[in-house]
Amino acid sequence: MLLAPRSKFLLIGDSVTDAERTRPVGEGLFNAYGKGYVANVEALLSATIPDHAIRVVNMGCGGHTVLDLKKRWQTDVLDLKPDWLSIAIGINDVWRQFDMPLITEAAVALETYAATLEELVVQTKPTLKGLILMTPYLIEPIKTDLMRARMDQYGAVVRDLAAKHGAVFVDLQAAFDDALTNRHSSSLAWDRIHPNAAGHMVIARALLKAIGYQW
Amino acid sequence: MLLAPRSKFLLIGDSVTDAERTRPVGEGLFNAYGKGYVANVEALLSATIPDHAIRVVNMGCGGHTVLDLKKRWQTDVLDLKPDWLSIAIGINDVWRQFDMPLITEAAVALETYAATLEELVVQTKPTLKGLILMTPYLIEPIKTDLMRARMDQYGAVVRDLAAKHGAVFVDLQAAFDDALTNRHSSSLAWDRIHPNAAGHMVIARALLKAIGYQW
Amino acid sequence: MLLAPRSKFLLIGDSVTDAERTRPVGEGLFNAYGKGYVANVEALLSATIPDHAIRVVNMGCGGHTVLDLKKRWQTDVLDLKPDWLSIAIGINDVWRQFDMPLITEAAVALETYAATLEELVVQTKPTLKGLILMTPYLIEPIKTDLMRARMDQYGAVVRDLAAKHGAVFVDLQAAFDDALTNRHSSSLAWDRIHPNAAGHMVIARALLKAIGYQW
Amino acid sequence: MLLAPRSKFLLIGDSVTDAERTRPVGEGLFNAYGKGYVANVEALLSATIPDHAIRVVNMGCGGHTVLDLKKRWQTDVLDLKPDWLSIAIGINDVWRQFDMPLITEAAVALETYAATLEELVVQTKPTLKGLILMTPYLIEPIKTDLMRARMDQYGAVVRDLAAKHGAVFVDLQAAFDDALTNRHSSSLAWDRIHPNAAGHMVIARALLKAIGYQW
Amino acid sequence: MLLAPRSKFLLIGDSVTDAERTRPVGEGLFNAYGKGYVANVEALLSATIPDHAIRVVNMGCGGHTVLDLKKRWQTDVLDLKPDWLSIAIGINDVWRQFDMPLITEAAVALETYAATLEELVVQTKPTLKGLILMTPYLIEPIKTDLMRARMDQYGAVVRDLAAKHGAVFVDLQAAFDDALTNRHSSSLAWDRIHPNAAGHMVIARALLKAIGYQW
Amino acid sequence: MLLAPRSKFLLIGDSVTDAERTRPVGEGLFNAYGKGYVANVEALLSATIPDHAIRVVNMGCGGHTVLDLKKRWQTDVLDLKPDWLSIAIGINDVWRQFDMPLITEAAVALETYAATLEELVVQTKPTLKGLILMTPYLIEPIKTDLMRARMDQYGAVVRDLAAKHGAVFVDLQAAFDDALTNRHSSSLAWDRIHPNAAGHMVIARALLKAIGYQW
Amino acid sequence: MLLAPRSKFLLIGDSVTDAERTRPVGEGLFNAYGKGYVANVEALLSATIPDHAIRVVNMGCGGHTVLDLKKRWQTDVLDLKPDWLSIAIGINDVWRQFDMPLITEAAVALETYAATLEELVVQTKPTLKGLILMTPYLIEPIKTDLMRARMDQYGAVVRDLAAKHGAVFVDLQAAFDDALTNRHSSSLAWDRIHPNAAGHMVIARALLKAIGYQW
Amino acid sequence: MLLAPRSKFLLIGDSVTDAERTRPVGEGLFNAYGKGYVANVEALLSATIPDHAIRVVNMGCGGHTVLDLKKRWQTDVLDLKPDWLSIAIGINDVWRQFDMPLITEAAVALETYAATLEELVVQTKPTLKGLILMTPYLIEPIKTDLMRARMDQYGAVVRDLAAKHGAVFVDLQAAFDDALTNRHSSSLAWDRIHPNAAGHMVIARALLKAIGYQW
Repeated sequence: MLLAPRSKFLLIGDSVTDAERTRPVGEGLFNAYGKGYVANVEALLSATIPDHAIRVVNMGCGGHTVLDLKKRWQTDVLDLKPDWLSIAIGINDVWRQFDMPLITEAAVALETYAATLEELVVQTKPTLKGLILMTPYLIEPIKTDLMRARMDQYGAVVRDLAAKHGAVFVDLQAAFDDALTNRHSSSLAWDRIHPNAAGHMVIARALLKAIGYQW
Repeated sequence: MLLAPRSKFLLIGDSVTDAERTRPVGEGLFNAYGKGYVANVEALLSATIPDHAIRVVNMGCGGHTVLDLKKRWQTDVLDLKPDWLSIAIGINDVWRQFDMPLITEAAVALETYAATLEELVVQTKPTLKGLILMTPYLIEPIKTDLMRARMDQYGAVVRDLAAKHGAVFVDLQAAFDDALTNRHSSSLAWDRIHPNAAGHMVIARALLKAIGYQW
Repeated sequence: MLLAPRSKFLLIGDSVTDAERTRPVGEGLFNAYGKGYVANVEALLSATIPDHAIRVVNMGCGGHTVLDLKKRWQTDVLDLKPDWLSIAIGINDVWRQFDMPLITEAAVALETYAATLEELVVQTKPTLKGLILMTPYLIEPIKTDLMRARMDQYGAVVRDLAAKHGAVFVDLQAAFDDALTNRHSSSLAWDRIHPNAAGHMVIARALLKAIGYQW
Repeated sequence: MLLAPRSKFLLIGDSVTDAERTRPVGEGLFNAYGKGYVANVEALLSATIPDHAIRVVNMGCGGHTVLDLKKRWQTDVLDLKPDWLSIAIGINDVWRQFDMPLITEAAVALETYAATLEELVVQTKPTLKGLILMTPYLIEPIKTDLMRARMDQYGAVVRDLAAKHGAVFVDLQAAFDDALTNRHSSSLAWDRIHPNAAGHMVIARALLKAIGYQW
Repeated sequence: MLLAPRSKFLLIGDSVTDAERTRPVGEGLFNAYGKGYVANVEALLSATIPDHAIRVVNMGCGGHTVLDLKKRWQTDVLDLKPDWLSIAIGINDVWRQFDMPLITEAAVALETYAATLEELVVQTKPTLKGLILMTPYLIEPIKTDLMRARMDQYGAVVRDLAAKHGAVFVDLQAAFDDALTNRHSSSLAWDRIHPNAAGHMVIARALLKAIGYQW
Repeated sequence: MLLAPRSKFLLIGDSVTDAERTRPVGEGLFNAYGKGYVANVEALLSATIPDHAIRVVNMGCGGHTVLDLKKRWQTDVLDLKPDWLSIAIGINDVWRQFDMPLITEAAVALETYAATLEELVVQTKPTLKGLILMTPYLIEPIKTDLMRARMDQYGAVVRDLAAKHGAVFVDLQAAFDDALTNRHSSSLAWDRIHPNAAGHMVIARALLKAIGYQW
Repeated sequence: MLLAPRSKFLLIGDSVTDAERTRPVGEGLFNAYGKGYVANVEALLSATIPDHAIRVVNMGCGGHTVLDLKKRWQTDVLDLKPDWLSIAIGINDVWRQFDMPLITEAAVALETYAATLEELVVQTKPTLKGLILMTPYLIEPIKTDLMRARMDQYGAVVRDLAAKHGAVFVDLQAAFDDALTNRHSSSLAWDRIHPNAAGHMVIARALLKAIGYQW
Repeated sequence: MLLAPRSKFLLIGDSVTDAERTRPVGEGLFNAYGKGYVANVEALLSATIPDHAIRVVNMGCGGHTVLDLKKRWQTDVLDLKPDWLSIAIGINDVWRQFDMPLITEAAVALETYAATLEELVVQTKPTLKGLILMTPYLIEPIKTDLMRARMDQYGAVVRDLAAKHGAVFVDLQAAFDDALTNRHSSSLAWDRIHPNAAGHMVIARALLKAIGYQW
C-alpha cells in the first residue's frame, strides 16, 4: 500500500466527506469519522491492517467549495501536519450554478476552481508524503446532462492537476459510471450527489484501490 | 371555470400532494392543506375568487402507490362525497422499481397500475361532477433516462384513461418539461421528484389552467 | 413587467414579510424565502418566467417598526445592492399603540414614521432601478375601528411618499378591503394582521399586479 | 354569595374555559385549573374565603361547540355531580361560520345551538343547586361586525334560556364591551377571542360578581 | 388608590416575583409579567381600571438575595425610572441558612440584609413617587420553626425600614398567617415558599389593599 | 442479617420508593432501581456483600395510597414471589387531606388505611420469609404541625400492625426526627416529603439497620 | 460466492445485528439496514456486485436471546421466505449470567440454548438454500475471563450445530481474537460486545469471507 | 474521622468523579454533587454526621487527564481553598493509550503523569489540612490484561506519591479487585471503567474507610 505504516491520512472535502463527522477535528471515538466513505476507509484499515497504524482524520465540511477550503486550509490541513492528504472538492462549485443559478456568487467558476485548487496543491505538496486528488461527480450516466457535462470539466481539471503535480488520481465519476452499469442513479443517491451506504462504499473502494489497499 | 361555485374539490395522491397536510382530513385552519400545490390551489382560489366558494380537501399520503390509494378509497374519497376529484398517482409505483429494484413487491407494474387506476375511475366517475387525472412525472428533460422513460409509460396510461373516461387531463410531465427549458432540474427539485416552492407552483398552475381558472 | 430581466429584488418589512425566512439573508435553497408572500412572489416568478431570472431576497424581520428598519438599513439593504426594493412597514408602528398602549416607546408616532420612512426612501432611491412602497393594513373592513383608522393615516403617508418620490405604490389595505367583500376577516387572519395562505396570496397578487406581472 | 359553603362548582366550556387544564378532570395540584378565568376564580375563592370550601372543577375543552358538549355531558358533567354548574359555550358555534365558511358542518346553526343548549339545561337543572349561563362573545365593540352581530344572536339565546330556566345570567359580551370603553380590543386579545391575563380577569370578575362574591 | 394615574409601577424581588417573567424587562405581550402575583396585579389593574393606565414592570429574578438586587439595581431599577417601586426580598437570604447551612456565603446575614436594603431604599426613595416594602415570609404558622423565627427577624427589618423611610408596608407574613387560619400550608405551597395560584393571589391582594385598590 | 442469602427483596411504596425506577418491574441494569433509598439499599448490598446475593426489586409508584397498592397487589407483589417485602405507604393518604382538602376522595381516612394495610399484610405474610413495615413521615420536628400529628396517627397504625403480625418495624419518622437534631427540614427536603440524597440515605440506613446489615 | 444471484439473505440476531435497523422489517431506503455489520454487508454487495442482486434483510433485535428469537421466528424469519439465513445469537444468553447474576430468568442456560437453537435450525433448514451460523463472542483475548470461557462454550454449540446440520460456520470469536493481535479490546468496543465501526467491519469481513465474497 | 468538623472537602477527578455534577462548582441543592461516589460520600456524611458539617465540593470533569487538571488547578482547586482534597486521576491518561492508540497526544505517558501529579501535590499540600490520593483502576481482575497492567503502573505512582508526601492513600484498584471476588466485572461496569450504583458505592466506601468514617 502506498501509505507507509503509521501515516497520518487527512481527508478534506464537502458534505460527502463530512457526513456528520465530529468537530473541530474528525477523529477519535464514537463516530468521529462520520457516516460516509471516510468512516468506511477508517473501518477497513483499522479492521484489517491495524498493524499499519494508519491514522485517519476527516476534515470535510458540508456545502464547501474550493474557496471555502482555502479559507480554512491553514488550521484544517497544514496545522494538522498530515503525511497523506486526500482532496475531494468541486461538487458545490458546480451544483450552485444549477440549483441557484441566480445567486452567482455562491458557485465557483472553472478558472477560479482550477487556480485555487492548484494553489492549495502547490502550497501543500512539499509538506506531504503523498497527495490524492478525487474528482467531483454527478451520479448520472447520461453525459449530456448539463450539470454532468459541467462536472466533467471540473473533473478534468482534477485529472490534469494530478498528472502535473504527481498526485494519486481517483476518478470518482468513473467509479460511479461503472457502478451505474446495472442500476439507476436513484438506487445510489436520490439527489445524485449524497450517496447512500452503497454509494459511499463505491467511493471508499475507489480510493482504497488507488492506494493499493488489499482486502 | 369548470368547477361550479360551491364545489367540493378533493385532491388525492402521494407525498407531492400530501406535503404535510393535516390528518385525518386535509382541510381547515392552520396549514391544513399542507405546503405544496394543494395549498397553492386553495390559496389562489380563496384569495381571488372567494365568491366561488370552492372547498378544497387534501387527501395525499406520502409514499403511496395506486394500490395504497385503492385500500383507502372508501374512507378517503367516497365517504367525503367530493364534487370534483383530482388524482395524481404513479410516482412511487415507478420509483420503487429504480431505487429499490430488489424489493419488487414495493413497486407496481404497469398493467397493475393501469387496471387499478381504471377501477378507481370507473367506480368513482359516476359520483362526480368532474374528474381530473394528472400524470406522474420525473423532473428530468432527458427522455432516455430509464426512470423518465418508464414514467412516460405510466403517464401514457393516465392520458389514455382520461380520454377514455372523459376526465380532465393534466400533463404534469409536460409542464415540467416546459419549465426545464431554461433551467436544470436541480433548481426545481434535488431529487427530481419533490418540488421546491417553484416546482409546486408549476403543478398548481398546470392544474388550474386545465380547469379554466383565470388569475 | 417593470423589473428588467436579471433584476435583484429585495423585499424588506416586518413579520408578514419575514414569515420564517432564512438568516442572515433570505434567499437560496430550502424555504429560504419563508412561508409568506415573498415565497409566493419568488415561486410565481421562478415557475412562470424563469428566463427573466429575477433574484428575490427576503429581508423581513418579525416585530420591526420603521425605526428598526433604519438601524439595519446599511447591512440589510444598501450592502446587498438590490435593483428593486419593496418596503412594507408600519403595522407594528401602529399596533403597539393599541395592544400595549402604556408602553409608549414601543410604538412609532405618525410624524416619526413619515420622516423616517422618507429618510430611507431618499437615501436609497438613487441606488435603485425601482422602488415599491406597500401600505400597512388591518384586515378589517370597518373603517371606524380605531386601529384601522390609525392604520389608514399611516397608509396615507406611504401613498404620499410614493407619489412624491416616484415609487410604485401598492395599496395592501385596499387589496384586503377588496378581498373582504364576500368574507369575514377571520377567514384570512385570526388576528387581522398575520395572513393565512390565502391572505399572503392577496398580498403577492397585489404586489405582482403593480409591477405588471402576467400569470 | 349564592354558592353555599362546600359547594362543588363545575365550569364547562371551550378553549377559553379550558386554558390548558389537566385531563381528564381539571382539579387538583399543579395548575390543574389551567391558566384562564377558572384558575382566577379558584385562586380568588381559595385565597380569600377558604372557609367556604368551594370546590372548583374545570371541564373546558378547546374547540368545542354545544354539540361537542352534548357528547361528553354524561361523563364530564352529570357523573361528577356538581352542585353548581357554569356553561360558557357558543364561540366556536359562531366562529366556524366565519373563519371556515365552506366547511359548514363545523359550525352550529342558531336553532341547533338554542335547542341543544336548552336540552342540556333541562336535563341538568334538576340535579343542581344553581346554574350559571354565560354568553359567548367577540371582544369587538362595533356591533355591525358580522361576527359580532351573529354572536349577539347566540348571546340572546343564552339570555332567554337563563330567564326561562331560572339560571344566573352572566353577560360576558357586556363585560367586554364595558372593558373596551377606554381601550382597543387588541390589548385584551389579538384574535378578539382568546383573552390575555387581563381579559380572563374580566371574565372571572363578571362571573364572581354575578354570584355575589365580595373581594 | 395611592398610585396616581399613568404611574409606572416596578416590582422587584426573587423567584416569587419572577415567576417566569420575560427577559430582560418583564412587561409587554404574552405572559411578560410571569405567572405569579405580579401578573395578578397587572391583570386586576388592567381589567378593572384601565383608565388609570398603571404600567406594571416585573423585575424579579429567581434565587436572588438583597446582595444580588444591589448588583443589578442600576440597570433593573434606576434606569427604568419607575414612579412606584415594590421590593420583596429576603427569602433566599434566610433560606440558604437552612437548606445549605455549610455554604455560608450563599446566605445573607441579618445585619448585611438590613444595611443593604436600607442602602437601596435611601438611594432610590428620592427618585420615586412611592415605595412599597414587602416582608419575606415562610408559609408556616408555627412561629417556633427555626426558619420562620429567622424570617420574622428579617421581616422586622422591613417593617422598621418602611416606618423609618415612609414606605408603604406590606406584611406578607401576616397575610399568609391569616390565610392559614383554616388550612395547612401544603394547600398553598408544598415547599412553604413558592405559592400556588391561590398563594399568589394572597400576595396580590395584600399588596393591592395596601395601595388602596378597590375591586 | 435477617435476610438469608439469595433472598428476593421487594420494596413497594409511593414516590419516595419509586424515585424514577424502571417499568414495569424495577430491577436490572441502568438505574432500574431508581434514584432513591431503594437504589441505595441495592448498591450497598451489592457493593459490600455480593456473596449474599440479595435480589432487590423496586415496585414503588408515585402518588399512590394504600388503596392504590391494593389494586396492583396481585401483579406487583404476589406474582413476583418475593421472599422479603418492605411496605412504605401512607404519605399520600395523609397529604391529600392537607394539600387538597376539598377533594376528599383523593385521601384515605385512618380507618380505611388501617384496614386496608392489614388486609394486605394478612394476605401476604404467609407467603413471605419476612415482612418489613415502614412508617409514613413528615420531615418536620414540630409535632403540633397538623399534618405531622396526623402522620403520627398513621405511623402508629403501622407500629401496631408490625407488632401484631410479627413484622420488622422501621420507624422512618423517628429516623428523620433524629436527623433533624442539628438541621432544618429544608436541608433534607424542601417539601418535607421528597428527600434529597442525604434524606434517602437516612431511610436506607434505618431500613438496613433494622434488618441487621453491617457496613 | 455461495449465494446464488437474486438470493434473499436474511440476518437475524441481537443488538449487534440490529444496530438501529428499521421496523418492522430492516430493508429499504434510508439506513434501513442499521449502522452495523449488516449495513456493511449490504453496502459491499450492493456497491461491488449489484448484478448479483442479493437482497439483504436485517431482522436483529437488541437484547434478544435465543428464546426471544424463537418467539418471533414465524413472523420474522419463516414468513419472509429467505433463501439464505444468518443467525448470530447467544451474547445476551451469556451476558445476563454475568451482569445480572441474580435475575436468573433473564439468561439462557447452555442446554436450553443448544436445544432451542437446534430446534430453530431443524425447523428452518429445509426451507433454505443456505444457512449461516455465527458464534457469540466477547472481544477479549484472555480465555480465562469467566465470561469469555462461558461464551466459548456457547460458541462450541454453534460450531457443533453447524457441522451437524451442514451450515456455513462463522467463528466471530476467532475473528475478534485475530483482530486483537495488535490491539486492546477497548479500541474495538468499550464494553467488549458492541463494536465500533472497525469492529463491525471485522464481523462483516468474516461473514463475507465465509460465503466466498471477493472484494 | 480524619477530617475535622467544618472541613471543606473538595474532590477532583475525571468522569467517574464528575458524574453529571453542577457547573461551575459542584455543590448545593438539586443533585449538585452528581450521581456518583461523590454524591454517596456527601449523602452519607450529611445523613449520619451532620453535626460534623463537612462541606463537600465535586470538581470532577469527564474525559480529563492529569494535564487537564493542571490547566484548571488554580480556579478549580486553589481558589476554592479546600481543607481536604481528594485527587482521582489517571484513567484517561491510560485508556487513551488503548482505545485510540494512534492519537498519541490524547494520552499521558507514565513519566509525565508522575511528574505532573507530583507537581500538583507539591504545590497544594502546604495549603491543605489533608490530601487523599486515589489510584486509577480497571475493573478487571486479570492482571495480565494490557490495560490493567499499565493502570497498575500508574497506580504505583500514586502509591509512591502518597507515601512520599504524606497523603492518605486509597487503593481503588484493590477495592475493585476485592469486589470482584464473587462476581464478573460486567455486573459493576459494562466498560470496566464507569461504575454502576454498586460500583460507585465501592469507591465511596474505600474512600470513607480511609478517612476513618464509621457508619
